[in-house]
Amino acid sequence: MSAKQGKLLATINFPSDLKKLREEDLPRISEELRQFIIEVISANPGHLGASLGTVELAIALHYVFNTPNDKLIWDVGHQAYAHKILTGRKDVFHTNRMYKGISGFPKISESKYDAFGVGHSSTSISAALGMAIASKLKEDNGTQHIAVIGDGSIAGGMAIEALNNAGVSQANLLIILNDNGIAIDKNVGALKDYLTHIVTSRTYNKFKDKVWQLMGGGSKYGKNSRAIVKQLGNAVKSSILKKSNLFEAFNFRYFGPIDGNDVIRLTKVLKDLKRIQGPKLLHIITKKGKGLPKAENEPTTYHAPGTFDKNTGEIKKFPNKKNLAPKYQTVFGETIIELAEKNDRIVGITPAMPTGCSLNLMMEKMPDRAFDVGIAEQHAVTFSAGLATQGMIPFCNIYSTFMQRAYDQLIHDVALQNLQVVFCLDRGGLVGEDGATHHGAYDLSYLRTVPNIIIASPLNEEELRNMMFTAQLDDTGTFAIRYPRGQGVMPDWKKPFKKLEIGKGQIISDGKDLAIITIGHIGNYAIKACQKLKKQAYDIAHYDMRFLKPVDEQLLHEIFKKFSKIITVEDGTIVGGLGSAVLEFMVDNNYTAKVKRLGIPDRFIEQGSQLELHTECGYHPEGIISSVRELITER
Amino acid sequence: MSAKQGKLLATINFPSDLKKLREEDLPRISEELRQFIIEVISANPGHLGASLGTVELAIALHYVFNTPNDKLIWDVGHQAYAHKILTGRKDVFHTNRMYKGISGFPKISESKYDAFGVGHSSTSISAALGMAIASKLKEDNGTQHIAVIGDGSIAGGMAIEALNNAGVSQANLLIILNDNGIAIDKNVGALKDYLTHIVTSRTYNKFKDKVWQLMGGGSKYGKNSRAIVKQLGNAVKSSILKKSNLFEAFNFRYFGPIDGNDVIRLTKVLKDLKRIQGPKLLHIITKKGKGLPKAENEPTTYHAPGTFDKNTGEIKKFPNKKNLAPKYQTVFGETIIELAEKNDRIVGITPAMPTGCSLNLMMEKMPDRAFDVGIAEQHAVTFSAGLATQGMIPFCNIYSTFMQRAYDQLIHDVALQNLQVVFCLDRGGLVGEDGATHHGAYDLSYLRTVPNIIIASPLNEEELRNMMFTAQLDDTGTFAIRYPRGQGVMPDWKKPFKKLEIGKGQIISDGKDLAIITIGHIGNYAIKACQKLKKQAYDIAHYDMRFLKPVDEQLLHEIFKKFSKIITVEDGTIVGGLGSAVLEFMVDNNYTAKVKRLGIPDRFIEQGSQLELHTECGYHPEGIISSVRELITER
Repeated sequence: MSAKQGKLLATINFPSDLKKLREEDLPRISEELRQFIIEVISANPGHLGASLGTVELAIALHYVFNTPNDKLIWDVGHQAYAHKILTGRKDVFHTNRMYKGISGFPKISESKYDAFGVGHSSTSISAALGMAIASKLKEDNGTQHIAVIGDGSIAGGMAIEALNNAGVSQANLLIILNDNGIAIDKNVGALKDYLTHIVTSRTYNKFKDKVWQLMGGGSKYGKNSRAIVKQLGNAVKSSILKKSNLFEAFNFRYFGPIDGNDVIRLTKVLKDLKRIQGPKLLHIITKKGKGLPKAENEPTTYHAPGTFDKNTGEIKKFPNKKNLAPKYQTVFGETIIELAEKNDRIVGITPAMPTGCSLNLMMEKMPDRAFDVGIAEQHAVTFSAGLATQGMIPFCNIYSTFMQRAYDQLIHDVALQNLQVVFCLDRGGLVGEDGATHHGAYDLSYLRTVPNIIIASPLNEEELRNMMFTAQLDDTGTFAIRYPRGQGVMPDWKKPFKKLEIGKGQIISDGKDLAIITIGHIGNYAIKACQKLKKQAYDIAHYDMRFLKPVDEQLLHEIFKKFSKIITVEDGTIVGGLGSAVLEFMVDNNYTAKVKRLGIPDRFIEQGSQLELHTECGYHPEGIISSVRELITER
Repeated sequence: MSAKQGKLLATINFPSDLKKLREEDLPRISEELRQFIIEVISANPGHLGASLGTVELAIALHYVFNTPNDKLIWDVGHQAYAHKILTGRKDVFHTNRMYKGISGFPKISESKYDAFGVGHSSTSISAALGMAIASKLKEDNGTQHIAVIGDGSIAGGMAIEALNNAGVSQANLLIILNDNGIAIDKNVGALKDYLTHIVTSRTYNKFKDKVWQLMGGGSKYGKNSRAIVKQLGNAVKSSILKKSNLFEAFNFRYFGPIDGNDVIRLTKVLKDLKRIQGPKLLHIITKKGKGLPKAENEPTTYHAPGTFDKNTGEIKKFPNKKNLAPKYQTVFGETIIELAEKNDRIVGITPAMPTGCSLNLMMEKMPDRAFDVGIAEQHAVTFSAGLATQGMIPFCNIYSTFMQRAYDQLIHDVALQNLQVVFCLDRGGLVGEDGATHHGAYDLSYLRTVPNIIIASPLNEEELRNMMFTAQLDDTGTFAIRYPRGQGVMPDWKKPFKKLEIGKGQIISDGKDLAIITIGHIGNYAIKACQKLKKQAYDIAHYDMRFLKPVDEQLLHEIFKKFSKIITVEDGTIVGGLGSAVLEFMVDNNYTAKVKRLGIPDRFIEQGSQLELHTECGYHPEGIISSVRELITER
């Protein structure tokens, strides 16, 4: 069921349709496209704000460039809804982020217009440079390579690495710096201040006007365009900007800033830039949430607002269910404050996810002790290590999938030096609608392989609190706590803190037919499964390991002495995680048992609700139940 | 046995001794210290060039600052020999990089003067910022926090992430940019050009003179120093540099460039900078290899030259042994050229290690198709991904330990998109003298957990060639080839290419008492062990898996049907690697056997020769032999 479409939009399915429009029709199609996005996303939640800001950009790019032959890469990609709609996916856009629907991010396998699969930040310049060099090697000078990157993402380390490399490449590369002054949360860092300075300073505005004047001041280009462009180049060269611009230091030609929500102007500038060879950067200013007043005013809330009223923008509230269990994120956010109030060595660190992980609560309450370091996972971890060397206890909160960005820092700067950094790995396991790029599927395995690190995962809210409490006690060493996205199971969760014994698991329910061993929140599925199985007269024991490392060998001895049939369940890949740890223990200690490992199979899992995906992977309660039955009937 | 010491140096063991010297004695102590380093390193190989360049810097820093209370962090750390000698380690310096000796890198557990453990590049600013923020939280305004970072390392992404964060921090942070124009190989990238431009341009030199003049032009500071420093600040502000400097864009105060091998000048400037609060950067120019003419002229060769004549610098040649097996690095370097000559889709990529990995051969022969992207592992991988989307076949050569820096890019930008990038993971396994920071201990495990990737590891040179050949065939997908540092086993290695069947292992020798399963070069230890065991009347089979993923299930079925005692051997952590894969297969397929896993134990391993370390870990030939005997006698 697609949404209502404006008359112009109804005629557009591909860029070739768009190209038939007159330039003066572009504002209207922008408006229709924006309304279409608002209507669809109001009913089917997605990334609203960023995509509303780039409607004009998507239109101008597909209008001016020859996609898919010209390569267009959207950094992160959650701002690419207009692009998706304009490239053959208008009629399926209402399945955005749904199970078996289209992905919330550009994806090579979904469309030839998606030049590169994205999701994590700051990859676009590297990828576009690779494509540009490939064109050069093929002696193809006609293809254009365009990376659209936000002001938050361009400060990510790998984007700067790419700038540094591209600057000496003479590749045909256009970077569009989409500056809306905000990442998911308020953008931070010196570079942000610098960009603001460019935009507001008189010199730059003067230059901006000069460029615009040189480019024809709004009038159409005639046959003199080449000469004009050359003149423009000289103007840039001779301008004060030559010396004063950061991007020029990286040997990029810098253009802008211009209004990125002015589709006519944008179109003209892009037409001109098309004719300039070599690495160049166009700085555009856009408004996040453009066109929906509430979204413009509250960009963090409307980054991904859930369902809302398409006319007023009012976010739909659901009747407050009493006794609802909190999100693990809330438990983290409130608990770190509680702990920090008593222990002044505690500090909080997040790389650009304060609202997502709830560190924003601490940032409000203790602004000196909570740090959003920007999109900078590598720095976040080693910054934490530096703090730890001086006796601070940093709680470094990183989404599991983004921790992959700081794997070396975790090994080399923290664990190897035995520093007490507490990694809170949010969104461990299958995350749901964000899909393949964002699942926290590998963390248990890639962490387990690192020496000298404690790996814990809570079954519920109380355990998360106790793990955080335990991690900040003296000389605990490097500590990772991994928990999922979303709701826990304990409405009444604010229990007094209790120190956990490190490396000790617990028995949840006793039994004699078979043992289920779990780690983390997913153990609640096993609890449900055991309850149902009990009614079916199966007598199943359930053990929650709590710690993946060090693993509770005493408990495992007990289990292997008692049971010859065992099922392990984890919300992570079955390659190298809890299941493998159990097998290693078993064989090292000369036990034999039938062991079935449930977890994420060894392939990439697409998007869907968490339950849909758990079901697909066979470790939802019913999946556990059928595995139990199978194993029990096996002989 | 320590080396000969000059008279002044003989009096110096700690910075407190150094502080007793008069400023005019500093050039002499610099000379003596330099000679000491040359003498020791000429006999006991280490990182020569970088450390010779920073002798004056180390002296000036310990002379001016109050270490270890002031925090001093050497990025990478191979340039810190003078620092080590000045901080209590002169008498053990001859054990540098040796088994049970001192580490080649600064290390917290080795000395309180080593504020942070280093080894991998670009970490120093993050760590120093963490320390500076810790001081701020403790309301300690007196402590200084100093990061010394090279012009190659500062272009690494995480260093820029740290700059971006530090620029808005008001932390008391001094970055010393040690610009010697070279990393291990020639430095690359736009930033390098930019720094060269600063150093050579007239404007900057004018400014440099002005600073120097303002700072007293070489005369001593009197009580007016504060006023002078203030004036200096204003000069910087009003200078054209204010607008033209990259570091100012990150909100750092920029000073320099000055001659970093002029110890008197350096000392004066550091004294002044000590009084300036907030984030600041001093740009110094040093000469890599300073004081040894051959090392100055051939900086790449003398980065780590092996043993050499301490007077002439002549590198000691060992009589050419005939029929010597080549290094795997040479096999890689020559084979990629051979393949690229026939397949024009092949390109080569390295992040700043062309000489180390031998891609320099291709860079010379095919400069358009081989890319050194600088210290930028993240970019290197995603740049490769971009190339692959356009049908190129990038061979991305990264040291195993540095691949940890690009783990996310491997997952998110390559494997998830099923792109044909060939990762050549050099220096997999224990690397020897570089020690704990550099061992390629985790790659087999962290790669195995990623879906959609082929993981191969050659037993010998011929197999490396065949794996490279196979990886570049059509539609092979993401392919990792992992091989160790150093020599192979086949003097006559240039065999014709043969396609390997992906996921197929091989039997090396048959037997019936027990099976040894190996992967990679370490299998040669098993071959030796089997030969010796045969003489002792043990009948041992040996299988080489070749591929860790997909694992050869057919071969494993054969093995488990035939043997009840199995030993796995890998030059990697025993957590999650080959051994674990074998256990997973065994249990999934309902086999039972006694399996002993040999490999790197689950702790960090220090430096030593590779054989010393293999012996420590128990998988050298004798270690394998005793494991075989033990397991066979076990019942």
